[in-house]
Amino acid sequence: VSSGKDAPVVEDAIRSTAARVTPPDRSSARRAQVRQRTLARPAGSLGRLDDLVKVVAGIRRDPRPGPLPAVVSVLAGDHGVAARGVSAFRHGLTSDVLKLIASGRAPVNILARRVPARVVTADFGLVTAVDGAHRQEQRYKVTNGTADISRHDAMTVAQARRAVANGIAFAGERLGDEPLLAVGEIGVGNTTAAAALTARLLDASPARVVGAGSGVGAVVVAHKRTLVEEALRRTRGRPDDTMRVLAALGGSEIAGNVGVILAAADQRRVIVLDGYITAVAALIAVRLCPSVRGYLIASHLSAEPGHRLILDDLGRSPLLSLGLRLGMASGATMALGIINAALAVAAYTPPAREVGLTSADAR
Amino acid sequence: VSSGKDAPVVEDAIRSTAARVTPPDRSSARRAQVRQRTLARPAGSLGRLDDLVKVVAGIRRDPRPGPLPAVVSVLAGDHGVAARGVSAFRHGLTSDVLKLIASGRAPVNILARRVPARVVTADFGLVTAVDGAHRQEQRYKVTNGTADISRHDAMTVAQARRAVANGIAFAGERLGDEPLLAVGEIGVGNTTAAAALTARLLDASPARVVGAGSGVGAVVVAHKRTLVEEALRRTRGRPDDTMRVLAALGGSEIAGNVGVILAAADQRRVIVLDGYITAVAALIAVRLCPSVRGYLIASHLSAEPGHRLILDDLGRSPLLSLGLRLGMASGATMALGIINAALAVAAYTPPAREVGLTSADAR
Repeated sequence: VSSGKDAPVVEDAIRSTAARVTPPDRSSARRAQVRQRTLARPAGSLGRLDDLVKVVAGIRRDPRPGPLPAVVSVLAGDHGVAARGVSAFRHGLTSDVLKLIASGRAPVNILARRVPARVVTADFGLVTAVDGAHRQEQRYKVTNGTADISRHDAMTVAQARRAVANGIAFAGERLGDEPLLAVGEIGVGNTTAAAALTARLLDASPARVVGAGSGVGAVVVAHKRTLVEEALRRTRGRPDDTMRVLAALGGSEIAGNVGVILAAADQRRVIVLDGYITAVAALIAVRLCPSVRGYLIASHLSAEPGHRLILDDLGRSPLLSLGLRLGMASGATMALGIINAALAVAAYTPPAREVGLTSADAR
Repeated sequence: VSSGKDAPVVEDAIRSTAARVTPPDRSSARRAQVRQRTLARPAGSLGRLDDLVKVVAGIRRDPRPGPLPAVVSVLAGDHGVAARGVSAFRHGLTSDVLKLIASGRAPVNILARRVPARVVTADFGLVTAVDGAHRQEQRYKVTNGTADISRHDAMTVAQARRAVANGIAFAGERLGDEPLLAVGEIGVGNTTAAAALTARLLDASPARVVGAGSGVGAVVVAHKRTLVEEALRRTRGRPDDTMRVLAALGGSEIAGNVGVILAAADQRRVIVLDGYITAVAALIAVRLCPSVRGYLIASHLSAEPGHRLILDDLGRSPLLSLGLRLGMASGATMALGIINAALAVAAYTPPAREVGLTSADAR
């Protein structure tokens, strides 16, 4: 699907986007914090929600952002390693799930309607194309499934770069201008890829990063761990270059989300990460461009053990801890409601003096 | 405000309500769980949200409850101990906050509009009546503020019983028939009363249950602990009768919420507890009527150290952990959105077979 001819263009799209990202604005964040102390409620009484408002104010360069329009992004990719029996689901199921999301009937659609938020999907590397009424356009696709990472590099470096660049293009072309972005993915087998990437990028042992994924038993978890060990052994001694690691161990939807996250930071969106897989993409985006970090909010802590390692490395603590392991941006979409509730309270609670609660009320 | 003449009637209202409460229906809960396994998503992939659906199904006697209409209840009462400087706020501020809620401009109103949910308030024991446009009716009120618990019983046993009975009446007369109920309160000084009740009911040391409340410093926390120790010393050796403990150490809004919780269980509502103060009321309601326990959902874990002790005793773990310490049902109201999101996903996700995801997909 991709060709080598446009390599300099792709390289440039990634480099120029990363170069444009500046950290969130500290002055707006500070003004939001000061403003909240004047409202008709005890200072700091909303705990982490007060912190959220400060973060969003910095990202949006606005000390009083108020509830924000939201969009949910779900990128899809297939993983060669899924054929090795690491998932509760058959290889190729990913496109059926993408079709379900595109039909508006999947759990993420049900959650998004309650926010409300638009849901946008794209095929970055499915084995089979989605057919019928919910056909996906193929312009962002870089591969018909990745190779089995225990034996081969998932993608070529050119494909990985192309997927990142396509993620940047997708964010510009399909995600509108909603300032609140839930980042999600689907890909049968992708917790295995995420575990390999986490082990490599954070120098963690496979035992600490491999989990039950979609819900497999102990025997399959042990098998996953063996495959991750093989993938790490296979690539040992190679240079630490982030893009090469992504190509060797990643997935097309993970690489695509690296691009989505880079572009979203450049577009000054509030980036709400879903679970383990999107956290790995964020870690890679931060390695490519450290200023991205200030744009990230962790929505939930999934059941995957590697997830916490990455969030700790990113310095983010999750808003929700509900044991979700559904993927498809479901946790991030639930968090959108929490974030907008916090923004609404900060924006609409009247000043203390206006309702007769003077500063003498707080000793 | 209350008189002794109607004591038998009050006693009977409490006893008959408690006697009518039966545990949630296990068969509906089980059917909800079985049904969820047939949907187009991995079994158990929504973690604690799947458990929530099961709990609500049991309470509502409906294996597929769907999102539910919701109401938020906020009872207000003043505490004599507030005059001893245990709060960041002046004694008497409670009625100004109640007025703010009644005007629809407080944080809880902003949160409730997003659910959406109605907000209903009542004066169970303010020092001063709320005047102006937001006057509260006085029919549920049992006292003009409680006595300082470090020196006197907060209320007489007759007043405590009357407040519980008035809570039952309030739930029947003012809370409509919304099946989802957020239980909240306001009362300057009430974390001190809650701490004394927790220490007494769970036989815990004051050091483990006294916290910063509305946001006081270490010196005031130490002072609060001393007052709680005095209250416990003052009542030492008295019989363990729950209603007597409530009268000696409680508050009118806490006693009122005991009644609201008893009545709501009888009405088969899903009872969503706010923070520390409502958890204490739930603990007392469960002591009076153990079947109430199955109707309780803990919305969040507040910053008060005694809160976790009570939730552990009730066997409930909080959905949110955001460090809230605002009271006025704010945490419970945020949780309403999470609960209805879980119910929506369970009710509206299509069956796996209908979208071509056969059972062979789950190995």
